[in-house]
Amino acid sequence: MHFTSEQRFDDGVLEREFTLGEIPGILWTPASRPEPGAAPAPTPLILIGHPPLGLRRMYPRLAGRARYYAAEFGFAAATVELPGSGDRPRRPELEEARAELRRVLAAGEPVTGGIVDALILPLVEQAVPELRAALDALLALPGIDGPVGYEGGVISVGVRLALVEPRIRAAGLFAGSFVPAVMFEEARRVTVPLHVLLQWDDEGNDRQAALDLFDAFGSTEKTLHANMGGHTGVPAFELEPGARFFARHLR
Amino acid sequence: MHFTSEQRFDDGVLEREFTLGEIPGILWTPASRPEPGAAPAPTPLILIGHPPLGLRRMYPRLAGRARYYAAEFGFAAATVELPGSGDRPRRPELEEARAELRRVLAAGEPVTGGIVDALILPLVEQAVPELRAALDALLALPGIDGPVGYEGGVISVGVRLALVEPRIRAAGLFAGSFVPAVMFEEARRVTVPLHVLLQWDDEGNDRQAALDLFDAFGSTEKTLHANMGGHTGVPAFELEPGARFFARHLR
Repeated sequence: MHFTSEQRFDDGVLEREFTLGEIPGILWTPASRPEPGAAPAPTPLILIGHPPLGLRRMYPRLAGRARYYAAEFGFAAATVELPGSGDRPRRPELEEARAELRRVLAAGEPVTGGIVDALILPLVEQAVPELRAALDALLALPGIDGPVGYEGGVISVGVRLALVEPRIRAAGLFAGSFVPAVMFEEARRVTVPLHVLLQWDDEGNDRQAALDLFDAFGSTEKTLHANMGGHTGVPAFELEPGARFFARHLR
Repeated sequence: MHFTSEQRFDDGVLEREFTLGEIPGILWTPASRPEPGAAPAPTPLILIGHPPLGLRRMYPRLAGRARYYAAEFGFAAATVELPGSGDRPRRPELEEARAELRRVLAAGEPVTGGIVDALILPLVEQAVPELRAALDALLALPGIDGPVGYEGGVISVGVRLALVEPRIRAAGLFAGSFVPAVMFEEARRVTVPLHVLLQWDDEGNDRQAALDLFDAFGSTEKTLHANMGGHTGVPAFELEPGARFFARHLR
């Protein structure tokens, strides 16, 4: 892991861009605030996922959440670029799947399971091992202790990661993308506490499928927060309950 | 309105039992905490609804919420006995409807719209004018300024009250009881901000009907918080976001 830039904000949060092999990422860490005479509290890590639109385009939303977590809750937060996104090399099979999705949406044709699988599964297969390698590197840094929470989309990435990575102790998922049928089976085996956000009027999202996925999760603690509005319209007031969810389970 | 008892708790909250005509109720008010030199902030009122099981039986849950609102948020909170419940005279038509509901549930027969109407509509017709009269009396007391939030069940009472009572500026509803078909029509005309709690595994509740009712509300700001567990299993961590919802809309 190589740090390529850093800046410290007025709230004490340190933002550092890094590369891990060929994968760019960003890390936010809180100002250290040791109580006089007390041992410093462990610093959990929130791994922030995002749609495959490129880190630069997603930066304002990601940084807003990450800096809030660091400044208000003392969490570290990090995000990495998804395969085939941003400045990373294109992946022809993902490009083809997205072109096919655009074509059927434009033609008013149904989005078949085959299209959804081609769009999402290769992303899950490559992103999850990359995120686990990022966890290895991030948790080896001084001042980042874990445990780890995952939050954001792509929801199928979150499902797989929560299933296979024992360091993930809680997940805040965003029900806003196509979900391959196989992920419903994986969801039944997920047991970590979940906090799921659903935008009720999400244009590109099947609401019933999102409710069915929420129902499928095996976790005994799972909460759904549904709000009005489209995909990008999550209300600002959802930031705090999301952070409190992680505080309950990571501290 | 006659106060019949009062006690002050360690957190400064004053609890007073009252009667309003023949209707018993309880009022909780926060300790006055005027900032030196500043005018005291207005005190909003939360009207707390509850299932028709009697105030005495519901007291621990009602008082827990009310005292939290008063101590932590500086809200006044009040609740009144529903028609035909607790120490109030039985209402034969409600008793008959409940007996009929028990009979069909025991026999495994479907709960028809007619049974639901007979169970809920007379309660709504009588409770809503009583709650409005209680608001008149409560808002005439010194130190209770409004605006008013309604929270709790019976959800149809909340729907009707939010529709007809302009002093209700926000409603926190509990999707946990049978809903007459006519209430879906009334819900479409409700426009105040809503915060709806749903227990995903509620034994006596039709989950799809609850989701349909949430969808029906005309409000542009509405949030659904769904949690695992049965009717009485609302997690303690839901208290704070509910209070913050009222703080956003009543201050």
